[in-house]
Amino acid sequence: MSDGKRGSLSVVGLGPGAVAQMTARAREVIAAAEIVIGYKTYLRLVADLLTGKEVIASPMRAELERCAEACRLAMAGRRVVLVSSGDAGIYGMAGPLLEMLLHAGWQPDGGVRFDVVPGVTALSACAALVGAPLTHDFCAISLSDLLTPWPRIEKRLEAAAAADFVTALYNPRSGRRTWQIERARSVFLRHRAPATPVALVTAAYRETQAVILTTLATMDVASLNMQSTVLIGNQRTFVRAGLMITPRGYTDKYDLDDHLVAGDHADPDAIAGADSSSSSSSSSGSETPSAS
Amino acid sequence: MSDGKRGSLSVVGLGPGAVAQMTARAREVIAAAEIVIGYKTYLRLVADLLTGKEVIASPMRAELERCAEACRLAMAGRRVVLVSSGDAGIYGMAGPLLEMLLHAGWQPDGGVRFDVVPGVTALSACAALVGAPLTHDFCAISLSDLLTPWPRIEKRLEAAAAADFVTALYNPRSGRRTWQIERARSVFLRHRAPATPVALVTAAYRETQAVILTTLATMDVASLNMQSTVLIGNQRTFVRAGLMITPRGYTDKYDLDDHLVAGDHADPDAIAGADSSSSSSSSSGSETPSAS
Repeated sequence: MSDGKRGSLSVVGLGPGAVAQMTARAREVIAAAEIVIGYKTYLRLVADLLTGKEVIASPMRAELERCAEACRLAMAGRRVVLVSSGDAGIYGMAGPLLEMLLHAGWQPDGGVRFDVVPGVTALSACAALVGAPLTHDFCAISLSDLLTPWPRIEKRLEAAAAADFVTALYNPRSGRRTWQIERARSVFLRHRAPATPVALVTAAYRETQAVILTTLATMDVASLNMQSTVLIGNQRTFVRAGLMITPRGYTDKYDLDDHLVAGDHADPDAIAGADSSSSSSSSSGSETPSAS
Repeated sequence: MSDGKRGSLSVVGLGPGAVAQMTARAREVIAAAEIVIGYKTYLRLVADLLTGKEVIASPMRAELERCAEACRLAMAGRRVVLVSSGDAGIYGMAGPLLEMLLHAGWQPDGGVRFDVVPGVTALSACAALVGAPLTHDFCAISLSDLLTPWPRIEKRLEAAAAADFVTALYNPRSGRRTWQIERARSVFLRHRAPATPVALVTAAYRETQAVILTTLATMDVASLNMQSTVLIGNQRTFVRAGLMITPRGYTDKYDLDDHLVAGDHADPDAIAGADSSSSSSSSSGSETPSAS
């Protein structure tokens, strides 16, 4: 119970499910907590950090209860961490936790410090296992129609397929929800070639990991479950030497041979400016490729 | 030079730009390398791992040369790491490196072991700094038209806006490329309310970090640079207590008050099944919310 001290509530993304794929910050925050709450499978990933802590391992079906418990304890002045898989912000626990926290009247200057610790999301993890399929514009779409009406999901599938986005399908299939992935396939087949590369990745970075490179027309969806992510290539995505690649466009613009001997072509936007995080603004002066 | 030993080539995502946001695996792979290649700004993030290694710090403008050098050295039997910001697979170095490697005739059973080490991508990092804007279906679109014709980019903006995707804009603006973000804004204004929440995040998790919560109509794009990511909310995204949230839909379906006292509602798809990585297939039996 609170004796005036300020509580804290952190929702932490653990990454795809291997300890090595967690960030240092995720581990720091968990190590500093008094109470760690999460689905028992995820808590096993951080078992080494839990000694001496209050641990609330909840079953799969108690997501909202988990959030409510986390809010109550933080508001009582405790240092609470709620763990989520992948990136807590992408279809993860950050959303419902924040909805709950605001519903309970949380204010930034109030008694509870709140933060989100990002992690490696499933689409990054799955892409890394098959090559480089996400090097161009992409969408993430969940096929779960439990909280989202199917027509809205299908509209997004249609838009993603028509505008040639590489597409990551989260929650593609479960024991009871089996037709949605077939509908998604048929939507994409209206806009993309049957031979469009598709990666089916299940349990990325776990012992039971399964990676299948297939195509839109031939993919066997029966192997998919709640641990699966489906990556559908765009019109230019190809598979070579067992790798799935969406070309960024260099080969249209540059002769790679120049580079294998030497050369210096600039593309700060596409690469250094890349994952947005990086590149200095000085790079803005170098957007025009230099002649080789 | 190779004396028969097998080279290796890893492209490693360093995350948004703070050491704490790197994964343990990223650091392990760099520590095990003989040669580390990257843009000098990123190499500073792993300076503690570089002692005794051959370090090739290249300027911003030499992305393809950096890839070619990495390929040459790995093919000569060396253990090479190429570092990239964020997630190497998302607009990062994994794409051009793989294009180059395949162009050079790489085969999986050949002399070079290749892998991609994923990291926290900019959209996850930026989302974590503003709340939970990415809890629903989203798109990532780069506004760089250096390698992609603008009409294709605008078609994707149109599709993302029309289908109500939360949208992350990478490379929104640079010194020379200033009109694209305005065009993006006007595309979205055709489909979303002027008051739609927008987050402008620059240099996430760096000393120069800047986070601005604004709206589609009022956003001041002048502050954006090559280190910025723009997050545009969907039709349901709201800002409250200084946080940007895209509701997942619980409040439509459940009474959160039930949970703040007690309760157990199931939504394995939306949450536990969440970031795809997790949840056991047993969860498939619990998709129908239990009555409270």
